[in-house]
Amino acid sequence: MATIGIDLGGTKVFGGVVKGGEVRSHAKRPTPETGPADVVDTIVAIIGDLDAKGVAEVGVGAPGQIDFDDGVVVEAPNLAGWDEPVPLGALLSDALDGAEVRIDNDVNVGTLGEHRYGAAKGFENLLGVFVGTGVGGGLVLGGKLRRGPHGLAGEIGHTIVHPGGRPWGAGPLGTLEAYAGRGSMEAEARRRHADGQRSALIDIAGDGRMKSSVFAKALDGGDQMANELLDEAIVALGVAIASAALLVDLDAAVIGGGLGDRLGAVFAGRVEQAARSRLFGSSSLRVVPSDLGDDSGAIGAALLFDR
Amino acid sequence: MATIGIDLGGTKVFGGVVKGGEVRSHAKRPTPETGPADVVDTIVAIIGDLDAKGVAEVGVGAPGQIDFDDGVVVEAPNLAGWDEPVPLGALLSDALDGAEVRIDNDVNVGTLGEHRYGAAKGFENLLGVFVGTGVGGGLVLGGKLRRGPHGLAGEIGHTIVHPGGRPWGAGPLGTLEAYAGRGSMEAEARRRHADGQRSALIDIAGDGRMKSSVFAKALDGGDQMANELLDEAIVALGVAIASAALLVDLDAAVIGGGLGDRLGAVFAGRVEQAARSRLFGSSSLRVVPSDLGDDSGAIGAALLFDR
Repeated sequence: MATIGIDLGGTKVFGGVVKGGEVRSHAKRPTPETGPADVVDTIVAIIGDLDAKGVAEVGVGAPGQIDFDDGVVVEAPNLAGWDEPVPLGALLSDALDGAEVRIDNDVNVGTLGEHRYGAAKGFENLLGVFVGTGVGGGLVLGGKLRRGPHGLAGEIGHTIVHPGGRPWGAGPLGTLEAYAGRGSMEAEARRRHADGQRSALIDIAGDGRMKSSVFAKALDGGDQMANELLDEAIVALGVAIASAALLVDLDAAVIGGGLGDRLGAVFAGRVEQAARSRLFGSSSLRVVPSDLGDDSGAIGAALLFDR
Repeated sequence: MATIGIDLGGTKVFGGVVKGGEVRSHAKRPTPETGPADVVDTIVAIIGDLDAKGVAEVGVGAPGQIDFDDGVVVEAPNLAGWDEPVPLGALLSDALDGAEVRIDNDVNVGTLGEHRYGAAKGFENLLGVFVGTGVGGGLVLGGKLRRGPHGLAGEIGHTIVHPGGRPWGAGPLGTLEAYAGRGSMEAEARRRHADGQRSALIDIAGDGRMKSSVFAKALDGGDQMANELLDEAIVALGVAIASAALLVDLDAAVIGGGLGDRLGAVFAGRVEQAARSRLFGSSSLRVVPSDLGDDSGAIGAALLFDR
């Protein structure tokens, strides 16, 4: 039986009919910026686009903090107008004639997808690391996703890699996200530029957002600041993944996300080296690049119904 | 039914008849330095001392790396003459007329004891942190001890807290153990002394080992170096515990071990503060001092038969 997988992002909603780990057909629409009710309507419309109105199971991957058991989006800073907890599961189920709806956060479902059908197939103890604007993560232990009592498990981005180090947002100093998140890397590049350093990053981005493609282009051109920032990101990822690997005894980490996917296998290989050199004794820890790409959110969301 | 719990240490073997989380009677003997066969004889003799020869279940906590499923001590640097993997479970079972023997490492059983009957009762997601000569740890997730595919889970001592920082042994630079282990703190104190700094730590210890009591005495006297080393240990513990708390979503950490027990509740309280100040957002994470003391190894070892 097919399941609908919905990847609810800050800018677009992607929906797919998922069967056997593949998106058989898909549809997408822009994410309304007018709050939860309109997002529910959009998801219902996408399911209509997919000609799957009678579907019994809908999995949703959403950004932010999710209460999986109750199907509630507790906090979603990237969704405009979602200022309070939203019972998205119940709202969607009502709008879909009682279909069963399960919701988890985007990085948890991304990790599930890679674990079950992607680059991390066969690794039963796995950390998913999604390097995009921020750094998110998901944790699979003994083949099962760990959510934890407060739904926090997998939050590798908040690992302290340099105590007292680089600031980022309202969090503590020196987190992994401060070194490896694209948003913080951009802020750091602009600080260094303001201090008089030149970089192709600034030339290419101008006043616009320093997207993953900007970093990729500057790195291709041998830009020094871009290389320094990348080296620091790789050390930070290696430190955080090595510490996590020993704490929970991991088989592998999979690296995805906007920046991670853009930089690909070479990036994952360098992170693997950085992690292994910091592991006590020898290790067989693998760090692999994700390979489900744009479909991973929908495939992972459908896996919330995996039996 | 009673179970025998054996705490196999580098200097002494402690055995107890354990029932309902209490040691009903106990016996101890020095650990032979002449290899596994003599240690097996010593454990059998202790069970004789306890007048418990017909016992059906013997749990053992041993230092080093343990293969729980096969009952093998893979590596035990602190046991003289244990240079190769030792099938301690099979050897002991044979020597005890087929009694069932289960073996795990000392920090795992210590964590089990505190979880089930000690300071961490009721915390289903728990990190045990044992601060002694080194820093070891055990991890309980969802009420169950996590060992992991390579038996490494819980190894909080190898968390990298200051990349490129203080050296210790053959491990990578800047681990938690390098800042919070008594052995490394002693090495650092002697380095600073060689650089011309004075400290009561050196005056009290002389050429002898800088035991936990030496640190306690120097701290009581307001010694500056001892306070600096302790502050650094507390930051390192806070960083490692905060990162672990978010990665696996912990309810609590329990602090034990020789130095941890000596410094007690004030120490645990300072570590709690250091961890919470580094957690993203608010947190209810508790850090508590262990309270089973010398009995925790035997009680925890008996819990390997917990049903």
